[in-house]
Amino acid sequence: MYHTHTYLINGDFNQSISPLDRGFTYGDGVFRTMVMRSGLPVNWPLHYQKLVADCAAIGIVCPSAELLMSDFLQLFSIEDIDSEKQEVAKIIVTRGEGERGYKPPAVTTPTRVIIRSAMPQYSKDYYVAGVQLHVCNTRLASQVKLAGVKHLNRIENILARMEWRDESIFDGVLLDQQGGVIECTMSNIFARFDKVLVTPDLSECGVSGITRQRICDLSSTLNLTVEVTQLSLSRMMQADELIICNSLYGAFQVAKIGDKTWGQQSLAKTFRNLLAYD
Amino acid sequence: MYHTHTYLINGDFNQSISPLDRGFTYGDGVFRTMVMRSGLPVNWPLHYQKLVADCAAIGIVCPSAELLMSDFLQLFSIEDIDSEKQEVAKIIVTRGEGERGYKPPAVTTPTRVIIRSAMPQYSKDYYVAGVQLHVCNTRLASQVKLAGVKHLNRIENILARMEWRDESIFDGVLLDQQGGVIECTMSNIFARFDKVLVTPDLSECGVSGITRQRICDLSSTLNLTVEVTQLSLSRMMQADELIICNSLYGAFQVAKIGDKTWGQQSLAKTFRNLLAYD
Repeated sequence: MYHTHTYLINGDFNQSISPLDRGFTYGDGVFRTMVMRSGLPVNWPLHYQKLVADCAAIGIVCPSAELLMSDFLQLFSIEDIDSEKQEVAKIIVTRGEGERGYKPPAVTTPTRVIIRSAMPQYSKDYYVAGVQLHVCNTRLASQVKLAGVKHLNRIENILARMEWRDESIFDGVLLDQQGGVIECTMSNIFARFDKVLVTPDLSECGVSGITRQRICDLSSTLNLTVEVTQLSLSRMMQADELIICNSLYGAFQVAKIGDKTWGQQSLAKTFRNLLAYD
Repeated sequence: MYHTHTYLINGDFNQSISPLDRGFTYGDGVFRTMVMRSGLPVNWPLHYQKLVADCAAIGIVCPSAELLMSDFLQLFSIEDIDSEKQEVAKIIVTRGEGERGYKPPAVTTPTRVIIRSAMPQYSKDYYVAGVQLHVCNTRLASQVKLAGVKHLNRIENILARMEWRDESIFDGVLLDQQGGVIECTMSNIFARFDKVLVTPDLSECGVSGITRQRICDLSSTLNLTVEVTQLSLSRMMQADELIICNSLYGAFQVAKIGDKTWGQQSLAKTFRNLLAYD
């Protein structure tokens, strides 16, 4: 059996979103994007843990893991595990419907949406030579109360993504207001300097993805020390290796930013292997 | 004839919002809130001008004024002009539906929503004695590309509004990252020092409302000079008079912030009169 639906709202194929939903009126919610393999979410415990944390950051009650798992079972087909069929699931959780005004209702029923889509077709080049990045003019605002959270207020990422049309550019580097490197529009970033793997501190802005967390956790197996710290653009450009990561592609080597190029290297491939993306 | 519908989506009473609408997935849109008097929008030219400017700020094609006016005619009833019946209209314009990912589709059809609601019932005290404000801990992030724009990324306002439950508090003062006064969660702010009316500069954050603009334009008739500048919280607390404004209530005198109180004064009433809110 293979469902043709592309989304499920509160466990129902026939529901839609009310224009009074606070996700629509205020971006009052959070989201997750993950690979579905053979109809099941990959790295689900980490994704769910992050969803719970992000909901808590803005005071939304997170739907239970059981409820979300039953949604996955409705929307995706569990095929033969050996098929290795991969798709993408996006979970959106909003505070639910409300009256006009920023004040949340005394009692809210969160809206949960699961959207099913095809796995992006990444160029083979990305896996071998690496990807090219643009450095965005749009800079991230500092907001300690929302830093790290994957919330639905994403106009900054959109403005940054609208800066380039060149299809050879895979992602854009986002700087903070002081010009420090934070992340890319849809990826986190790691710069290797000898045996030290530096990733930007996200305590003021940015989204802390679970693949970033997994890479931090796995680095010691490669005898790399992780430093979560400030990283200027000029220092990043001098890295021995640069890699970016997210939950869909795992990790890619950065081959080019502006005029600067890096030769063919293997850190991203090594991490894809450790992360079970190959 | 009196419609019972509370909203209209793309001119249709039976439409709903797709969970793929970028307004829902990313807060990728803008909005306006205005008084409808006898079924017609008050200060429509200014509201429409601001809607066009805000759409342009994030690269959305604004629906035509004719289209929006025909929406108003469908959703609201034009009653006897003498009835003075007042309601509230909220216009939301999003970039429209899109695939997963921040990049906007090559061709987008904006989604336009008009939501009809009852006029808030403001306490008579607000008109006579004035209102009480809370100073929010949540501070506004600086983002020059979005400053002034009434976009749908409003989690900051929500977190700020969630800071108080005391119903005697009308609104909350929002400071920027440096502690300068910017606005309130749903209002702009003016501080009078003798013959000078100071309102915070909104070039880094905040929403520049049309009532703020109208008050700036009207001040000369009261022999007041307007200064748009930085305003520290401590300086604001020493103002001779403090007023807040928005399109629904016009202007209210601020009577109390924390332990500081201001005696009964008349600037807000004078502006309500000039703004035709009384």
